[in-house]
Amino acid sequence: AELQVSGAGNMGSPGTGVGWGLLDYKTEKYVMTRNWRVGALQRLLQLGVVVYVVGWALLTKKGYQEQDLDPQVSVITKLKGVSVTRIEELGNRLWDVADFVKPPQGENVFFLVTNFLATPGQVQGRCPEHPSIPLANCWADQDCPEGETGTHSHGIKTGQCIVFNGTHRTCEIRGWCPVESGAVPVKPLLLQAENFTLFIKNTVTFSKFNFSKSNALDTQDPTYFKLCRYDPHSSPACPVFRIGDLVAAAGGVFEDLALLGGAVGVHVRWDCDLDSRGADCRPQYSFQLQERSYNFRTATHWWESSGVEARSLLKLYGIRFDILVTGRAGKFGLIPTLISLGTGAAWLGVITFLCDLLLLYVDGEAHFYWRTKYEEVRCAWGLGAVTPGASL
Amino acid sequence: AELQVSGAGNMGSPGTGVGWGLLDYKTEKYVMTRNWRVGALQRLLQLGVVVYVVGWALLTKKGYQEQDLDPQVSVITKLKGVSVTRIEELGNRLWDVADFVKPPQGENVFFLVTNFLATPGQVQGRCPEHPSIPLANCWADQDCPEGETGTHSHGIKTGQCIVFNGTHRTCEIRGWCPVESGAVPVKPLLLQAENFTLFIKNTVTFSKFNFSKSNALDTQDPTYFKLCRYDPHSSPACPVFRIGDLVAAAGGVFEDLALLGGAVGVHVRWDCDLDSRGADCRPQYSFQLQERSYNFRTATHWWESSGVEARSLLKLYGIRFDILVTGRAGKFGLIPTLISLGTGAAWLGVITFLCDLLLLYVDGEAHFYWRTKYEEVRCAWGLGAVTPGASL
Amino acid sequence: AELQVSGAGNMGSPGTGVGWGLLDYKTEKYVMTRNWRVGALQRLLQLGVVVYVVGWALLTKKGYQEQDLDPQVSVITKLKGVSVTRIEELGNRLWDVADFVKPPQGENVFFLVTNFLATPGQVQGRCPEHPSIPLANCWADQDCPEGETGTHSHGIKTGQCIVFNGTHRTCEIRGWCPVESGAVPVKPLLLQAENFTLFIKNTVTFSKFNFSKSNALDTQDPTYFKLCRYDPHSSPACPVFRIGDLVAAAGGVFEDLALLGGAVGVHVRWDCDLDSRGADCRPQYSFQLQERSYNFRTATHWWESSGVEARSLLKLYGIRFDILVTGRAGKFGLIPTLISLGTGAAWLGVITFLCDLLLLYVDGEAHFYWRTKYEEVRCAWGLGAVTPGASL
Repeated sequence: AELQVSGAGNMGSPGTGVGWGLLDYKTEKYVMTRNWRVGALQRLLQLGVVVYVVGWALLTKKGYQEQDLDPQVSVITKLKGVSVTRIEELGNRLWDVADFVKPPQGENVFFLVTNFLATPGQVQGRCPEHPSIPLANCWADQDCPEGETGTHSHGIKTGQCIVFNGTHRTCEIRGWCPVESGAVPVKPLLLQAENFTLFIKNTVTFSKFNFSKSNALDTQDPTYFKLCRYDPHSSPACPVFRIGDLVAAAGGVFEDLALLGGAVGVHVRWDCDLDSRGADCRPQYSFQLQERSYNFRTATHWWESSGVEARSLLKLYGIRFDILVTGRAGKFGLIPTLISLGTGAAWLGVITFLCDLLLLYVDGEAHFYWRTKYEEVRCAWGLGAVTPGASL
Repeated sequence: AELQVSGAGNMGSPGTGVGWGLLDYKTEKYVMTRNWRVGALQRLLQLGVVVYVVGWALLTKKGYQEQDLDPQVSVITKLKGVSVTRIEELGNRLWDVADFVKPPQGENVFFLVTNFLATPGQVQGRCPEHPSIPLANCWADQDCPEGETGTHSHGIKTGQCIVFNGTHRTCEIRGWCPVESGAVPVKPLLLQAENFTLFIKNTVTFSKFNFSKSNALDTQDPTYFKLCRYDPHSSPACPVFRIGDLVAAAGGVFEDLALLGGAVGVHVRWDCDLDSRGADCRPQYSFQLQERSYNFRTATHWWESSGVEARSLLKLYGIRFDILVTGRAGKFGLIPTLISLGTGAAWLGVITFLCDLLLLYVDGEAHFYWRTKYEEVRCAWGLGAVTPGASL
Repeated sequence: AELQVSGAGNMGSPGTGVGWGLLDYKTEKYVMTRNWRVGALQRLLQLGVVVYVVGWALLTKKGYQEQDLDPQVSVITKLKGVSVTRIEELGNRLWDVADFVKPPQGENVFFLVTNFLATPGQVQGRCPEHPSIPLANCWADQDCPEGETGTHSHGIKTGQCIVFNGTHRTCEIRGWCPVESGAVPVKPLLLQAENFTLFIKNTVTFSKFNFSKSNALDTQDPTYFKLCRYDPHSSPACPVFRIGDLVAAAGGVFEDLALLGGAVGVHVRWDCDLDSRGADCRPQYSFQLQERSYNFRTATHWWESSGVEARSLLKLYGIRFDILVTGRAGKFGLIPTLISLGTGAAWLGVITFLCDLLLLYVDGEAHFYWRTKYEEVRCAWGLGAVTPGASL
């Protein structure tokens, strides 16, 4: 009995008195089993967690880095190339860059004219509709109900049926005259554009890390960007692209795009690891063919000396370039690192839990382990406690 | 005593010798209490954690997915509609799409002209200021100090006071003449624009998952996009918008916007769950009214045969459309999954800790539980240890 | 022995019978040591974790917030200022806003013309090349191989050598005539642009939180934006920028940029803490000088009454403004909070583990602690177990 008491005393005194001291170090009591099967499994799983956390999450996936996925981007484009191009089809008409590029400001979306259909000197008036338009052909005036208009018609019918040319009679319309000919281009007018070069000046700024980089500043040689040409293998860093190569890389055939137009996306991807002194931060370029036909109409207006408003209508075919820039920057951050490690630690706990299940419910001696792992206490009569091996 | 020793021996030998073997499985020793109150609480909280982790963090919030929030976006717009519009106010002037849309390239920000004030054939010279301008009206030359100019004036005063029209005398200015009339539009000239349709071709590419999708490619029927009209309920997938509906959906009244102009934002939101075979990846459209009045001036210049530069000044009212695209793609990722689960595991530990506090400091028999949970050891005389229940 | 049995009985019965009851509360058994060194270390580290989690991760880094880093942005710009500018160099030519902003729509990228070189009334024809062009000067026709053209030449040589002016003879070319004079600007024509003001209307929408804010809506006074000027110190909220100040803030000299052009980036950064009633959500403006020279050519075409196409070629120098908007919004979220806290909890476990290592392998009495922490059990003869202190 007094053993019991003393035992109780031994244990009680700290609990009540000094034992409450904050500096007592409390550590879990473990039951050590000779069960090598479960033990091996546990070690294996622990190893797995460590390998995963350190090798995969931290090193491979750069889990120790804070990310900035939303850089501010500025793009300036400049289309260069032979300054003059001769187009036989248009009576030796000569074009230069001021005619090619719309808008000319050098934005990140621009249009390179490779073909066009011009209808110069239109004025508002009455003229015969083009025969290619539905319901335009007529034999008599009653074929042309006055005021009628269709989705594709160039104007509003006046009710007259007049001569269009030697072979056709069409309804007269009120609109911009003469009407545009429905001619479909058969041969691109500006095949030389294949050899033009596009200079893309791109600057990304990762404001979270206060880091900024341009794709055109990591050289000292001023003539570099005049002479170099982008090539995925030999010179991947040169931001000067030959239009023909660019279209080919996007999976298009330049002749086709030049004929009926198209849209090409140029994707500039930045992947910056700022922990390696920003050196490892180069843009990568990729190209997609977005559209296989592209054209639009535009008109320039002026007033003739007679005070009559005139316009020249241009149906422009060409290649639309769309420069898309995305970026990612990573830099060591305390919080992501601790989260990665902490998660790993939590997983170590999970493993022990799983192994316990194995030990306590699957193992052959589960029942025995259960008894030793779980020390039962009952609070029988007030303070008296049945502690294992303690007896009255 | 020898019990003590043997006990010590039993325990010491593994500690010193074989016990260091890596494959010994060590598991925490637990104290099992019959305290059903705390037990129930613990089970409840554990259930809560599991429900939260599995039900909420994992399934509802898709915590098992890696995210790509920064897609590369390309937008091509095409405004279609009746090709010809008749405007009585301008002497049956007829407009077509080449006149409506600025810029015509089909970018993601464009302007639909619905109203304008034209001042054709301006040339540099001297003419009377418009009476609506402050300080423009005069009785004598001394009302017009030479060289004076104001924020809203159209030119620089020459010092003369001359006749503007039958009713007004105003200061003469040097500038582009004749000056623009300050007329405020009272009736939109292009109400028909309400029936125009806007086709938005939008492609998003989530480079992290190497996944790309367009809002105009999930149909085989070529005529679909010619005929369909967007409707939030019946056809939410059709990217062809009737301008009138679009403005209404943005909360505007088309007549008002057509009169004084305005700005409408079209927001395309992609929310892609790539785990469900990319099928669940459709754009959602929403519309906001950004501005209730919008206009700007533009001029086209030309040189008359006499070598004099002339320009036509246009004050354009209209609706500015701003296509904004944002996107989110999620795909199963090991790391986010393990973080979600690991966090849950950590929380299970927190729960045990909380329940212990309850048991050890709040419960009626806390003092007793304390004694049994914390087994005190003292290192009294060197190696000898007082282990519970062991007595000399 | 019967003590042993009874002990076994005491422990066995719960294991087999009632003990499986879910509501038994099981809590780890701890060994309490009087080792104040390790204890103190543990407390210290625990304190560190708590301080880090609560103070740093949660409060400082706002770890309790969900983030939206990808707002949808709309920008409308309007360049205002003195409506008329007089340029002596051009025979008192007067300019207004319709002349110097391109494009005029008010997009987020626009160009302010500060200088230009005009070549009016060009038509396709034959004329002498400009002497400044390489290989343009000649003495005889053989100096001008027919059909030759160079990168900078204005046309294709016809083979004639003709008089350019009193002092020069140059090859005749076919192209747009007369050719542009290679004159380099020596003095900016539009220094007054320094006093123009740029109004930036910017709206950001964080769709994740369904929160939208504009930089021009947090005032009631309608005249505020007419009168205020941005100043980083006195009025940082006013989105009206004086061009001169803006260029200076970007680190440029306005006179230089006005002469040869340049590009300036205006970065609008939103950092919104939606937990503080959205009040703490103001844009911050910063400015970068992107280019020190910028120009492009543009041409307006028209058809003269004679049916001849004419154009006026403009080489425009000026400042390109590029408005970049990025934003971040944070709002309390359950998941990030629980992850932060859970990670902290996991770290508390790590700490205990580290202290154990210290105690078990470093401490002077490590061997003793080992024995008490790890209670060895052996499964010697079937069910009989050697439990500490139990003896035959």
